[in-house]
Amino acid sequence: MDVRFGILGTGTVGKTIAARLAGLGHEAMVGTRDPADTLSRTEPDAYGNPSFGVWQEEHPEVKLGTFAEAAAHAEIVINATAGAVSMEALEQAGEDDLSGKVLVDVSNPLDFSKGMPPTLSVSNTDSLGERIQRRFPEAKVFKTLNTMNAALMVDPARLAGADHTVFVGSGDPEAKAAVTDLLRSFGRSDIVDLGDITTARGTEMLLPVWLRLFGALQSPSSISRSSADVFLVEGSP
Amino acid sequence: MDVRFGILGTGTVGKTIAARLAGLGHEAMVGTRDPADTLSRTEPDAYGNPSFGVWQEEHPEVKLGTFAEAAAHAEIVINATAGAVSMEALEQAGEDDLSGKVLVDVSNPLDFSKGMPPTLSVSNTDSLGERIQRRFPEAKVFKTLNTMNAALMVDPARLAGADHTVFVGSGDPEAKAAVTDLLRSFGRSDIVDLGDITTARGTEMLLPVWLRLFGALQSPSSISRSSADVFLVEGSP
Repeated sequence: MDVRFGILGTGTVGKTIAARLAGLGHEAMVGTRDPADTLSRTEPDAYGNPSFGVWQEEHPEVKLGTFAEAAAHAEIVINATAGAVSMEALEQAGEDDLSGKVLVDVSNPLDFSKGMPPTLSVSNTDSLGERIQRRFPEAKVFKTLNTMNAALMVDPARLAGADHTVFVGSGDPEAKAAVTDLLRSFGRSDIVDLGDITTARGTEMLLPVWLRLFGALQSPSSISRSSADVFLVEGSP
Repeated sequence: MDVRFGILGTGTVGKTIAARLAGLGHEAMVGTRDPADTLSRTEPDAYGNPSFGVWQEEHPEVKLGTFAEAAAHAEIVINATAGAVSMEALEQAGEDDLSGKVLVDVSNPLDFSKGMPPTLSVSNTDSLGERIQRRFPEAKVFKTLNTMNAALMVDPARLAGADHTVFVGSGDPEAKAAVTDLLRSFGRSDIVDLGDITTARGTEMLLPVWLRLFGALQSPSSISRSSADVFLVEGSP
């Protein structure tokens, strides 16, 4: 069944998810602060990825709109913005257009302001997922996919034949079927429901060791293009 | 080559490591605050594990002493105390008897004072491993093995044929050979050197999602005896 998705964020994560959803036959609109400004940029980003405009020429089925337009368009909203600007982007999306909807939060509260590697702007006793749920209590927030890179989010077979786990922490377990369907459509079968949205503390706190693994296993400049950034979690009986 | 080990802590982690080291032919002395008090307890603990005295009857080759005696005895010291009391135990071990020695820190800064699941008493911008290294600058602190349960620490084949990773974060990379030898003697080959002791932030921050997995996958009462508590980390090329 085709679903209307609003994907907030024009970075690698937003583009990768939008392309995958469009490829699955869904209606995908990416949201940004200022679409004209986004399209005016033509240079590749710091990692060599093409600008949104260049990328969109190869993905004409993906629409671009404001955060508010993407949210209004959507049956399911995906927060794919950088954690530092997620709250602001969601404010622009607007409470009315988030209320009652599933809001899939794949962001992480990385704080780059204090040097590398980044720390977390919230952790341990709170999380970005919880902050989003508290600010938008009528949205059905699901924290998931934040423990891996964009390519792997939508194509789990890139690692270990897809034999690895994705976590879900939910602010509204009753809407779980929609998120599970989404993850299964991406090729996932190992989906672990950790519990309520407070479990986002745990998955967001995976980021520090993940970032250290980049440093240990490869050069920092390849971070955003790596497929090495995934945690396999295996429970034995 | 036989090594003299001082293992601080008489809990499951300390006993399990001590037994394994003794089985490998090393001289293992477990340190505790008050040996007479430790031996006076005869009841099993809350998880049904035998008291230290009962356990020691089956492991007579493992000695028991004060924290200071265990540290003085040791060529390599292992901090296997609960994170909440690690600094105090190490103070009792004494700076003089830690100086110049490898100090393997397998503890985690779990704070149970605010209810379950525990939070971390230090995280994100600091770690227990770093605190230990700062307080005992002449000790060669290695953070390792803290991301898995005691049984798996010393017997990696219990999970996935030992095909999983142990992390090492080091305050003294020059002493790395001793720690690598120790981990290999336990049956490990996948040893990832994350970098300096600040990488302990990352491995200690794995605990929250690990604890949530207990909640999601099994009953809380089986936490300490589970073999399900391990993270596999796999990097693809």
